Amino acid sequence: MLAVSRGSVSAVEDRGDSPPHFCERPSSAMVQRRVLLTSVVASTCILNKAAGFVVAAAPNRGVQSRGASCAATRSHAAAIPMSMVASMEKSKLLSTVDVDLGDRTYPIYIGEGLLKDGGLLLKHVTSKRALVITNDRVGPLYLDDTVQTLRDGGVEVDTVVLPDGEAHKTMDVLMLILEKALTCRLDRSCTFVALGGGVIGDMVGFAAAIYQRGVKFVQVPTTLMAMVDSAVGGKTAVNHPLGKNMIGAFYQPQAVLIDTATLRTLPDRELASGIAEIIKYGLIKDAAFFEWQEQHMAGLLERDAATVSEAVRRSCENKALVVAADEKEAGLRATLNLGHTFGHAIETGLG
Amino acid sequence: MLAVSRGSVSAVEDRGDSPPHFCERPSSAMVQRRVLLTSVVASTCILNKAAGFVVAAAPNRGVQSRGASCAATRSHAAAIPMSMVASMEKSKLLSTVDVDLGDRTYPIYIGEGLLKDGGLLLKHVTSKRALVITNDRVGPLYLDDTVQTLRDGGVEVDTVVLPDGEAHKTMDVLMLILEKALTCRLDRSCTFVALGGGVIGDMVGFAAAIYQRGVKFVQVPTTLMAMVDSAVGGKTAVNHPLGKNMIGAFYQPQAVLIDTATLRTLPDRELASGIAEIIKYGLIKDAAFFEWQEQHMAGLLERDAATVSEAVRRSCENKALVVAADEKEAGLRATLNLGHTFGHAIETGLG
Repeated sequence: MLAVSRGSVSAVEDRGDSPPHFCERPSSAMVQRRVLLTSVVASTCILNKAAGFVVAAAPNRGVQSRGASCAATRSHAAAIPMSMVASMEKSKLLSTVDVDLGDRTYPIYIGEGLLKDGGLLLKHVTSKRALVITNDRVGPLYLDDTVQTLRDGGVEVDTVVLPDGEAHKTMDVLMLILEKALTCRLDRSCTFVALGGGVIGDMVGFAAAIYQRGVKFVQVPTTLMAMVDSAVGGKTAVNHPLGKNMIGAFYQPQAVLIDTATLRTLPDRELASGIAEIIKYGLIKDAAFFEWQEQHMAGLLERDAATVSEAVRRSCENKALVVAADEKEAGLRATLNLGHTFGHAIETGLG
Repeated sequence: MLAVSRGSVSAVEDRGDSPPHFCERPSSAMVQRRVLLTSVVASTCILNKAAGFVVAAAPNRGVQSRGASCAATRSHAAAIPMSMVASMEKSKLLSTVDVDLGDRTYPIYIGEGLLKDGGLLLKHVTSKRALVITNDRVGPLYLDDTVQTLRDGGVEVDTVVLPDGEAHKTMDVLMLILEKALTCRLDRSCTFVALGGGVIGDMVGFAAAIYQRGVKFVQVPTTLMAMVDSAVGGKTAVNHPLGKNMIGAFYQPQAVLIDTATLRTLPDRELASGIAEIIKYGLIKDAAFFEWQEQHMAGLLERDAATVSEAVRRSCENKALVVAADEKEAGLRATLNLGHTFGHAIETGLG
């Protein structure tokens, strides 16, 4: 039921870590710390303003674990074709986590420089044509590289640049994606690429779900929050004045490509939001990860590549397990809404 | 691969009919008749104006087959709980066809008076709340009965009446459904009921697919075309100025409830469109059904209940087989687009 892909499991074993558990019993001291951090995380999620506080409050006890992560890389490389390995080494691929959903299983790649090197992106954009959708904040930073990578691979690329921000996560703005696809006469065989944070990922996933009754899409999250949460699991949606994420679909991507290099340009506040989300996985169901976070908070705050990659990998493993067990949020998956549900309700209530 | 539900197969065998085949070899005389009728049907589908011609051209050779249909009813009743049988007899349930899609398998009920009797509708609207969506032509005829049936079963019902016609099959009109659901604070456990022809069915199915990432829905088609085509198979969509059915989803209903009594109020032209669609199943892949149509055309034109029910049942069986083999139209299912694809392209080209 709660399946981990063979690649992921062997990677964990090679590193000597404990796999995550749903019912791990925390110590009493840990419970106290959890209670304290729960309130911090809840505040962060609800108001989305107090994120800096998490960073400020985090103890400076970090030790980097680059060696361990490299071991994970080697263990996984054996399962990937030799043609990919060269690309992986060039781009410092650190790990892969599979979201186990039967015939819709897909990989999450986590590494430094994946976007520029492009081997993995081209592996999953197998169509002749692609539509890359980004926003006016991320676009100037990473759109050219993404488009070039695809064109170098022989893909004909069109682009859409949307206004940035949650205020634009609406059906009207989503229609701009569909209209661009129609104007370019893209057919059902095309691929959409979502380049941006959670808003872009949610909207592009939904656009892909409903364009000509469904086309393929690849998630390229560029914020820490999107990397560890919204880009994984296929929850796509837009907002409506009467409620957040009220219109959408469960629709899984072909792959999630996490280039941790994109975090270098992330504003501090958004980094803090992502770290709060990472802490939540420890709070909800992974005590060992929670302990690890305490030891590596400095590395996370300093955006150390190996530390961030490791935090993203373990968060994605946690999320992938929950999604595999409860894709459509009939029960268990709702536990991940800790903070979100309450926060969305308050936001809706306040108008 | 091409599976027929056990209930349907036994019904066919008890009646001594041949089950439909995909590769049945027609006689040379039949080929000639098919060629002639193909051009008639193609004209009908493309222009949607020549439907009267099919009716005018149809030979008057009909013989009713009520006895045979009743045998089918009895054979299927054995597989249905006793509590349902009373309702079935009251409402003259003639047959059931299952669309075999694994854990999303659903039944198509075909009979006279199913809407008013309500047992089958209530069997599939298991939620506390329902939203019935219809249009301003069908609503005055059947909305009250539908709502009363649901309320008698303890379901809290809200309604939406949309403007009738293909011109209103747009995202803007679809948003009226979603806004009503949000205003009524319907949650993910509710059921949408589509009461109307193909436009209503396509729109309500799509609205159900994207409301809160998917809610249950039941199709109650009231036109012959919707009964034998659009209500079966889960193709849902709205149009866009740049193309027909360009925005939508593959999303299967809980059940399709075909009350043939609703055909009594159907305009002649729409009856003719439906008959053209029925002829198409014979043309494409069911020679025995084609022969049957030639013998029963008078009964169809006279809207004889048993003849119409039999034609609908065999059409739905054909469609169900194709949908089960190719739900998302990767190949075989596209054969059913005979006339549609060409017609839609012409319509789009003409603006």
